[in-house]
Amino acid sequence: MAGLPNMQMLLRPEMIEFGWGHPAFDLLPAAELAEASRQVVARHGPETLVYGAAQGPGRLIELLRERLERIDGQAPPVERMLVSGGISQALDMICSHCTNPGDIALVESPVYHFGLRLLRDRGLDLWPVHADQHGIRPDALAETLRQVEGTGRRARLLYTVPIFNNPTGSTLALERRQTLMDLVARHKIVVIEDDAYRELWFDRPPPPSLSTLDFSRVIRLGSFSKILAPGLRLGWIVADDALIGRLKDSGLLTSGGGINHFTANVVAEFMSNGSLETHVPRLRAAYRERRDILLDAMAQYLPDTCSFMRPEGGFFVWVTLPEGLNSTTLLPQAEAAGVAYLPGERFFAGGGGQRHLRLAFSLLSSDELRTGASRLGLIIRQAISQNCL
Amino acid sequence: MAGLPNMQMLLRPEMIEFGWGHPAFDLLPAAELAEASRQVVARHGPETLVYGAAQGPGRLIELLRERLERIDGQAPPVERMLVSGGISQALDMICSHCTNPGDIALVESPVYHFGLRLLRDRGLDLWPVHADQHGIRPDALAETLRQVEGTGRRARLLYTVPIFNNPTGSTLALERRQTLMDLVARHKIVVIEDDAYRELWFDRPPPPSLSTLDFSRVIRLGSFSKILAPGLRLGWIVADDALIGRLKDSGLLTSGGGINHFTANVVAEFMSNGSLETHVPRLRAAYRERRDILLDAMAQYLPDTCSFMRPEGGFFVWVTLPEGLNSTTLLPQAEAAGVAYLPGERFFAGGGGQRHLRLAFSLLSSDELRTGASRLGLIIRQAISQNCL
Repeated sequence: MAGLPNMQMLLRPEMIEFGWGHPAFDLLPAAELAEASRQVVARHGPETLVYGAAQGPGRLIELLRERLERIDGQAPPVERMLVSGGISQALDMICSHCTNPGDIALVESPVYHFGLRLLRDRGLDLWPVHADQHGIRPDALAETLRQVEGTGRRARLLYTVPIFNNPTGSTLALERRQTLMDLVARHKIVVIEDDAYRELWFDRPPPPSLSTLDFSRVIRLGSFSKILAPGLRLGWIVADDALIGRLKDSGLLTSGGGINHFTANVVAEFMSNGSLETHVPRLRAAYRERRDILLDAMAQYLPDTCSFMRPEGGFFVWVTLPEGLNSTTLLPQAEAAGVAYLPGERFFAGGGGQRHLRLAFSLLSSDELRTGASRLGLIIRQAISQNCL
Repeated sequence: MAGLPNMQMLLRPEMIEFGWGHPAFDLLPAAELAEASRQVVARHGPETLVYGAAQGPGRLIELLRERLERIDGQAPPVERMLVSGGISQALDMICSHCTNPGDIALVESPVYHFGLRLLRDRGLDLWPVHADQHGIRPDALAETLRQVEGTGRRARLLYTVPIFNNPTGSTLALERRQTLMDLVARHKIVVIEDDAYRELWFDRPPPPSLSTLDFSRVIRLGSFSKILAPGLRLGWIVADDALIGRLKDSGLLTSGGGINHFTANVVAEFMSNGSLETHVPRLRAAYRERRDILLDAMAQYLPDTCSFMRPEGGFFVWVTLPEGLNSTTLLPQAEAAGVAYLPGERFFAGGGGQRHLRLAFSLLSSDELRTGASRLGLIIRQAISQNCL
């Protein structure tokens, strides 16, 4: 019997899967995590298995604060932190407590497609804010805010992936940050900063979190999914004390205790024994190499009428097809030729994006990256010639 | 530095804590879980660490089906199962997808207080349905339904803990089950069956889940918190295929993958290597002994004007104080004398319950159980004499 799947990913034989923004199997520190599980139970015993503190285990919060201090130059106060079950769970929980169906949410455009789905599940009314290779355009934000005001309603939140954006890989430019924060402050909007990729920089560390500019206006969502393992379902929230207090006192956390207590303890052990410190630089080097191989192969195989951005971190390369091509209708042909990707339109709340596609390089070997780029180049060239007729 | 807490429980020195319905430290299989973590990673490697299948890992679902077949005499079809992050997470997720603020929820009365808080967090309008030592009274359910109808509205769900109820320890009587199911079917209400304590029976197994009577009307919530460890944050849902499909397709599960993938794999290993099979009977014996010691001590130390129920499973003894006493106002005196409990009124959505209190025997040693009962008896006798003046 084939049985039910264990994993989310369904890998198809002979298919180069640029679609899955997942870490590579060989970059998951399985043995070290197994050892951390053994160690933490030996060291702290039943305390790792009872109902956890609502905020997350103190030992993980302290380690996270130390880590964020190294990253941002400042540690968030304890009262502003909460351990989550990953960014998706955090986003879901925040929507439960801070939004009502019908509320307006501004969303970077393009942005993480399942983030959009999660917000839509809560009945939120999504208004796109256009971004370019330097992140959200302040003029686009101002314009969308004017449009919202014109309806007599107001926006509640802005969802953005400002560092190594999913899907584009772009990072919000330094000179745009303060303008953006001024705008959201003036309109009393809370920014939900999906900060999943920050630590996977290739060349230099990105600018600090938006929450370092204004704690009270930014809910920052961090995750162990990209720097450690997504199956752990562990992340953290940095936000205003009032929100953290509200989440801590919620029925969900009062009833079940901390979100993912056992795993949180395992990860605390993985951090405190130094494994994370050695693991993350290994990831940076590996993903940098994959990016470079893919970009080289794309330069070699894609026609010059294609353009693409060079990401400085994260998992993704964002491709713009020549005029007249459509990434959604091209996909079946690409898959028939053994290469899969995600069509751009999935990442746009307000429609559009048909000329774009997202390639994830995180999962693939050097050979697969080259073969994939070659297959994609061939299919795009074929489509261009078909288009000429 | 004292530091942030790691656990939910704050144990006070010299205090006998009947308040916490938590498993005893010495009944948590820490070493076996550490070994299962090691084994599952060794056996399945990175597959335990990537994004998990939305429904939960197939290997856990299959093991759960086998287990439920042994318990209920029938295994739920695969399409009706989903691995959850414990009952609280399941209840929260179901509210997200099936309710709107202002909806009417019927709630067993008394029932699990944090379950009530979780429903209230979602803005649900809670209507109590009275229960006695044999669970929900069908006449009370019919009466509440008539009252709801009288307002021109309708109830969406009924939340109940029908087996070894928290707080009373009662079990819904066999002869009431079909009447209850007929009533909810006639009124198109879904039953949320919080089935946390089923496996912790002391004398004989309880009747099968209400969901075996009508799959389409019952959302059954199961948990590893009581039979294994609450810090794992792992449970399961058995429900109608349509609801399971909706949850699987939600933004939360599409984005993050299965709720608690790594832990789900650890628990699958703990089940498949036979550890759970030997662990649960050990728990039954241990908790049965604690119940017996507490009941004996209560018979010895409490005045005859107190009454209490003899639970056939679970964690709790429900006490009724003599007329004129109030468990809420008595609590400070009890705590001053070194014994703590939960006042009954917390478990009643519609008010009342002041003459009741809940004692959890799960956490305490034989000596603590006896000392606690003795202190409680003393305080109650003092209150009675104060009351006479």
